[in-house]
Amino acid sequence: MIIDKLYKLVDERGPICIGLDIKLDYIPDYITKNNKLSLSEKIFLFNRAIIDNTDDIAACYKVQVAFYEAYGIEGLRAYQKTLSYIRKRGNIVIADIKRGDILSVAEQYAKAHFRGDFEADFLTINPYMGLDAVKPYFKYLDTGQKGLFVLVKTSNPSSGDFQELTCRGKPLYLHVAKKIEEWGVQYRGKSGYSALGSVVGLTYSDEFVKVKKIAKHTFFLIPGYGAQGGTGKDLAKIFKKEFNAVVNSSRGIIAAHKETDETESFVNITRQKVIEMKKDIERWL
Amino acid sequence: MIIDKLYKLVDERGPICIGLDIKLDYIPDYITKNNKLSLSEKIFLFNRAIIDNTDDIAACYKVQVAFYEAYGIEGLRAYQKTLSYIRKRGNIVIADIKRGDILSVAEQYAKAHFRGDFEADFLTINPYMGLDAVKPYFKYLDTGQKGLFVLVKTSNPSSGDFQELTCRGKPLYLHVAKKIEEWGVQYRGKSGYSALGSVVGLTYSDEFVKVKKIAKHTFFLIPGYGAQGGTGKDLAKIFKKEFNAVVNSSRGIIAAHKETDETESFVNITRQKVIEMKKDIERWL
Repeated sequence: MIIDKLYKLVDERGPICIGLDIKLDYIPDYITKNNKLSLSEKIFLFNRAIIDNTDDIAACYKVQVAFYEAYGIEGLRAYQKTLSYIRKRGNIVIADIKRGDILSVAEQYAKAHFRGDFEADFLTINPYMGLDAVKPYFKYLDTGQKGLFVLVKTSNPSSGDFQELTCRGKPLYLHVAKKIEEWGVQYRGKSGYSALGSVVGLTYSDEFVKVKKIAKHTFFLIPGYGAQGGTGKDLAKIFKKEFNAVVNSSRGIIAAHKETDETESFVNITRQKVIEMKKDIERWL
Repeated sequence: MIIDKLYKLVDERGPICIGLDIKLDYIPDYITKNNKLSLSEKIFLFNRAIIDNTDDIAACYKVQVAFYEAYGIEGLRAYQKTLSYIRKRGNIVIADIKRGDILSVAEQYAKAHFRGDFEADFLTINPYMGLDAVKPYFKYLDTGQKGLFVLVKTSNPSSGDFQELTCRGKPLYLHVAKKIEEWGVQYRGKSGYSALGSVVGLTYSDEFVKVKKIAKHTFFLIPGYGAQGGTGKDLAKIFKKEFNAVVNSSRGIIAAHKETDETESFVNITRQKVIEMKKDIERWL
């Protein structure tokens, strides 16, 4: 099962998920100034160089589709090539699309992102519309080859606006966390964790501890490390025995080279940042 | 302001929003069997025929991106052409993308869907992440040319899973409806309604009545008519004096020709369905 594969990769390579949240100004001049390349090729070459130089030390990759949609059709071509390349090398890719819609529409999203041009291994899903927004993906989870991460408590400053409203004695995000744990029973792998996972931001470690208590078989995708403020110390508060999560960093890794000496190869700097992040996390665990 | 334009179009043409939720098997043979056409051209020609034959009696169009994403890059090309064509004819298009993400990501979605390849007039947004998920679009609303519809109470059967949880004495969806009304104050047009609107499903008319009481300056995008079960009678329960809403129908209009005599032109049937829907609504109002 895909969740067992991810669990194993975390064990072997460490828990880093590299977020390929592309912006053109992250891409080195030697690529952007090559006029023979189309926009999609430029973006893809940048991503490929990162993947080639990090996929022995990263558990997986996360591709935030918004950054590609912002470049229109050409951006989505780069998105397609990137997903395909990550998977071809035997790595896991999470498509961070945060879709959420009624049954008949979610069926189309599942078709779009679990097969065809934009095939990914995991998708992120927004739970606001309830079970209908999640269920159409289950037939893909049944194959053992696909998984989901559903938003529970997000990393952003205003995530409390609705997620922390107290509903029937407990905050909304705990209601969502509980449902994900329940719905995910049938997708548990040998590792004990379900292919129906949750997204919880590292920026709210106290809330994360509460989620963990009621979601014992849930695997987590954790945004909010680095640029957003989360640290290895926060992770140590949350994870005691086992590390059933991947920790995402995007800008902190793929844009790091912009702040250093231009003569140094950008892939070395990128790789170095992944190693630093691994160390920061591992010394606390 | 775009919201005043929409308000005026509802007044002039009636409140129908035609949902272009495309599937290949909705497209007549004379288009699909033309081997000279690419997939994106086939989809676009179908949409264009509908638009050409209905835009005097439809307030606006809604394009659900999932149905296009399901056909990959070619599908998104058709999506692009469709949005562009609707706007070129002076009509309003709502991109039903239901995005919702943190500030830095939502900025990219705004860039992607309020300009460039996928430019639309209104977008649908998911509120689960709070104000951060909505705010990055405000600078586009400031221009007076763009608007949003934020999910409040959706039309699907499981929308109650979270939206109806009682939080601090009232259901979650009413908390969301109230925030939208508040956040939208600065985007009110001459019509009195805000360019920051809400999505409320016609399938929950009692809940809709509650929303209406606390959201006096909110304009509504209403799914759930027809195939999903909502009727003109339900609308009459909700709207008494003024009709500050557009009512979407997708399959009920664009797939209607599949159930009738093949010899009749599909555009005539499509147009007829829009007229029938207008009549069904108008006899109750």
